[in-house]
Amino acid sequence: MDTFELITNRRSIRRYSSQPIREEVVQKILQAGMSGPSCVNARDYAFVVTQDKAKMLEMYTACGGPAAPLKDATLAILVCGDLNRSFSMAKEYWIIDAAIAAQNMSLAAYDLGLGNVWLGVWPQDERVRNLINLFELPDNIIPHSILAMGYPEDDRDMVPLTEERKREKFEADRIHREKW
Amino acid sequence: MDTFELITNRRSIRRYSSQPIREEVVQKILQAGMSGPSCVNARDYAFVVTQDKAKMLEMYTACGGPAAPLKDATLAILVCGDLNRSFSMAKEYWIIDAAIAAQNMSLAAYDLGLGNVWLGVWPQDERVRNLINLFELPDNIIPHSILAMGYPEDDRDMVPLTEERKREKFEADRIHREKW
Repeated sequence: MDTFELITNRRSIRRYSSQPIREEVVQKILQAGMSGPSCVNARDYAFVVTQDKAKMLEMYTACGGPAAPLKDATLAILVCGDLNRSFSMAKEYWIIDAAIAAQNMSLAAYDLGLGNVWLGVWPQDERVRNLINLFELPDNIIPHSILAMGYPEDDRDMVPLTEERKREKFEADRIHREKW
Repeated sequence: MDTFELITNRRSIRRYSSQPIREEVVQKILQAGMSGPSCVNARDYAFVVTQDKAKMLEMYTACGGPAAPLKDATLAILVCGDLNRSFSMAKEYWIIDAAIAAQNMSLAAYDLGLGNVWLGVWPQDERVRNLINLFELPDNIIPHSILAMGYPEDDRDMVPLTEERKREKFEADRIHREKW
């Protein structure tokens, strides 16, 4: 789909069918995640990809109620930062670089027909700790966000937004011209 | 352009022509910025938009050498977080929400024919402070990133990446399946 149309029509999809996702599609999503910019081109991210139902339930338990879409997702990507790669003068750029990677994957997945939703992890310490324990992550790897994905349970979930809904999202008071 | 193609072909563009950008295009870019998800739908971002050459030079001075693309940009968007809106249980989600907004704008601008580059601001304290002073930002507004934009000086800057370059960007060791 055209990029501007996709960005402005995309919404979070939380209900998925059991239709499996082909490996070729998974690879394309990951390629999109590695195609974005990063601070000093550090590429300071890492991805833990799972299609195992039991593992996704454990990820849900690690994150609590808001992560419920993992219960019927057919693909979950734990997006992490890699502090061994992040810019030495300002390590916290990893948070932005991982967000760029995740948004690229969310948009690419939508373009490939997959509904998906961002699930928050960082900066919520308990979720971060639980996921470090679940996946036995090394010290340099920090969980950032989870993308839960699957083909939509109901195709109507992915129809374009109404013009009214688009107008609601455009908040003119967020924009300042030339000065604050 | 098709979203997956655009994401995987996009690159940072740092040289711009003097061709002006129509207001309609600016509005579409801002719409894309406000179309992404945010933690608890807080929409905790704000944008300072400038097309004034003198102001863009001041932004360059505030950020130093890496912000040189501002010297011939025809549009700059200072993406900020708004702490008055951010999720009260975990304020730092503003950093991720602003990154999502910025990446949506970067991709939409590219789709609309505008080259652009992310310029880092947060977490580098001196740049953050200088931009707060330059725009006299209120206490709840934190500078996050700058997008410098313009029609490309050389159209060849925006041709698709070679397959070889795409392969280089795909780092298989960034991907872990089912476990770390």
